Amino acid sequence: MPRRILIVGAGKSTSYLLQYLLEHAEQENIFLAIADKNPDGIPQNFREHPLCKILTLDIADAEKRRGEVGKAELVISMLPPTLHLEVARDCLEFGINLVTASYISEGMRAMDREVRSRGLIFMNEIGLDPGIDHMSAMQVIDRIKARGGKMLLFESFTGGLVAPESDTNLWNYKFTWNPRNVVVAGQGGAAKFIQEGTYKYIPYHKLFRRTEFLEVEGYGTFEAYANRDSLSYREAYGLQDALTLYRGTMRRVGFSRAWNIFVQLGMTDDSYRIENSKGMSFREFTNLFLPYSPTDSVELKLRHYMKIDQDDIIWGKLLEINLFDKKRLITQENATPAQILQEILEASWTLGPEERDMIVMYHKFGYELNGKKFQLDSNMVALGENRRLTAMAKTVGLPAAMAALLILNKKVKEPGVQIPIRREVYEPVLAELGKYGICFNEFEVPYLGYNPESIAM
Amino acid sequence: MPRRILIVGAGKSTSYLLQYLLEHAEQENIFLAIADKNPDGIPQNFREHPLCKILTLDIADAEKRRGEVGKAELVISMLPPTLHLEVARDCLEFGINLVTASYISEGMRAMDREVRSRGLIFMNEIGLDPGIDHMSAMQVIDRIKARGGKMLLFESFTGGLVAPESDTNLWNYKFTWNPRNVVVAGQGGAAKFIQEGTYKYIPYHKLFRRTEFLEVEGYGTFEAYANRDSLSYREAYGLQDALTLYRGTMRRVGFSRAWNIFVQLGMTDDSYRIENSKGMSFREFTNLFLPYSPTDSVELKLRHYMKIDQDDIIWGKLLEINLFDKKRLITQENATPAQILQEILEASWTLGPEERDMIVMYHKFGYELNGKKFQLDSNMVALGENRRLTAMAKTVGLPAAMAALLILNKKVKEPGVQIPIRREVYEPVLAELGKYGICFNEFEVPYLGYNPESIAM
Repeated sequence: MPRRILIVGAGKSTSYLLQYLLEHAEQENIFLAIADKNPDGIPQNFREHPLCKILTLDIADAEKRRGEVGKAELVISMLPPTLHLEVARDCLEFGINLVTASYISEGMRAMDREVRSRGLIFMNEIGLDPGIDHMSAMQVIDRIKARGGKMLLFESFTGGLVAPESDTNLWNYKFTWNPRNVVVAGQGGAAKFIQEGTYKYIPYHKLFRRTEFLEVEGYGTFEAYANRDSLSYREAYGLQDALTLYRGTMRRVGFSRAWNIFVQLGMTDDSYRIENSKGMSFREFTNLFLPYSPTDSVELKLRHYMKIDQDDIIWGKLLEINLFDKKRLITQENATPAQILQEILEASWTLGPEERDMIVMYHKFGYELNGKKFQLDSNMVALGENRRLTAMAKTVGLPAAMAALLILNKKVKEPGVQIPIRREVYEPVLAELGKYGICFNEFEVPYLGYNPESIAM
Repeated sequence: MPRRILIVGAGKSTSYLLQYLLEHAEQENIFLAIADKNPDGIPQNFREHPLCKILTLDIADAEKRRGEVGKAELVISMLPPTLHLEVARDCLEFGINLVTASYISEGMRAMDREVRSRGLIFMNEIGLDPGIDHMSAMQVIDRIKARGGKMLLFESFTGGLVAPESDTNLWNYKFTWNPRNVVVAGQGGAAKFIQEGTYKYIPYHKLFRRTEFLEVEGYGTFEAYANRDSLSYREAYGLQDALTLYRGTMRRVGFSRAWNIFVQLGMTDDSYRIENSKGMSFREFTNLFLPYSPTDSVELKLRHYMKIDQDDIIWGKLLEINLFDKKRLITQENATPAQILQEILEASWTLGPEERDMIVMYHKFGYELNGKKFQLDSNMVALGENRRLTAMAKTVGLPAAMAALLILNKKVKEPGVQIPIRREVYEPVLAELGKYGICFNEFEVPYLGYNPESIAM
């Protein structure tokens, strides 16, 4: 009797997850129940496979949902993050292990004691970021500590970008994942991190002007701006004593400086609605954020207000997205500035059917060993195949699928609501990811951390 | 039998209000019951006056509060805005008129129907701003309309500043009212207004760079930044068809440009707390918002980050408030950046005992009459006597006291929860304010509004 895995949520982003599980179905003796509210998009080979069954399931239908959860030996929830909890409660009730690629929510965390006491494993944050970042970082941190090293610095960066040959616009950027997350990135409070033992705070309106550069061999230079939450894994990673902790988002050089124009104008604001936005031209939208003038053009007003020189490439970027166009009209009614900006950008930044995305991850580990300071950098680049088979779907889906099999095969001993920071999880998953071309390059660099004795205060 | 007025809340800011009522007590046949949680600060002449009684009253003590309200013919609440509602409910129950100088809250507004049906008057927003601004604006608007004019433009500005001879620091500013309101001014969403029929939005981080200048004869030039709520009185003022509506806050020229440094650094943020702020030096606080450097000074980092030239007066302003001081320490524990900035500024910006504050108000009225466009400007300057008898206390307290007598004398006919925008209120109050030196200068200027036909789009 094959072991039944229930996958709830089978959207576009789960292509690699499903494929991996199907390829391993016979060998691993598993049966896949793939449930989605609208399962029409699931490819034919799944429908015809004897070890696979496609179900139409509305997650709000408690009876049917509970029936399916109760039949499974493990559940993988690829639902939107807010919908995991219902499924998690069913899993707890029926004593079934759970895998998600989402951040642990408050509600999920609150289940930990019960999950533990029943000997269950609820593995979360096992996708790309969060996921591969945890695993690849902890593998190096544990190795450094095992050799007697003391962690001084940890910086970690991830970017969802476009592959070099698909990198065809002035922004060096296209949407490859949820565009809304990109438009509102960094909002909700100051970014907080530690540099050389001192807290540092960057308000949202300065976030995109405080970037640092990163070099990836064969792929050139990237920049990164700070995430809001650099300190959230401090304890989980065992970095309580590290003097520098920083997490960031990677873009191609120049993106942030141009994005900052939107921030400065107020176009990324998601807190109020613009009356009668429908039918407004892109140009009229832009003019909402500029002083009134009876004579000056929107172009000149923006150039002057944002101090954009005549020969600044930022100007070309703004023209490229048709920010001053009189004919292109906004289609959303009473939308927020952020929603409208998203609409404007989606008109320009969509990946073509054969274009490929690219994931880049970069870690810096600074440590002290035998009285000397060292730095190890490590990075990973993953390329998509096309618009459907993205590097994003691959790097999010494969770790979740692999973790599901590990748990099913009793290789994960520690029960509880958890993230993949223990060796028993990250070692086998990273090894398996390597077979799929997802691997990290490590190289020693001079220690670039800072000398706390000479802080100029 | 004298008519009893209950005044709840008798803090420092009520000196003029109490004095005015006491001076009119005999002639108006009124008796003053002055209630405060801690009435020790009320001057001796009130205690000895036969038409006055001082009460110790904790507003949370419902029984005592209701007892006092029930005995009065009218209540003036000068409590903090959040505490008016309890008193208002008592007034409604016992059928007693109410006066406050605060913005109408949701809860207050919700009482309107009942207040009306009982024929009561709950007069709110009858202080300075809101208060004198409503009355002085409506007097002109009603006059223009009565002559057949059509309102095109209304702009209104108020500032609580220091009198010229007390204007002794580089910021041309000292705290004369609630410092916290100054530090967090403009936060909570984009400023919204209308210019020539088009909505305009200014995000918080640009607010202090979008000022306009105002000239007041004998007092020089001022600047103003936009309030968040320029459109809130559109209907109340009958300005639905006006093409330009703008409300702002006045400062001396150069204040906003320097204040913008705090905004850009993130020092006005009130949304998160800084761990262990107590004992941190002003310099360390400043450094929280600057990039780390092992060699560069806090001064150089700030100059570079904020692009402050060597000879920019902003620099002197920052030095004057000791922003880089190593010895001055923050006393608040786990405080927000805004709370810490307030502490730093309060150390420098306090009014001396004999120094005087200054209130400035400026209105612009644009209108069309017989096919021609006109503009009328009007302004008012009020000076305080010393730190206790401030122009702020005078301009907030006198209108409330005058309105109380009007209501008591049945001169206000219209019942309901209201603000002073009707002639029956503003005419007598403005006339009476004139006797106390609070009067507006009006002058015709060329129409400076904008020509909508030539918007360069």
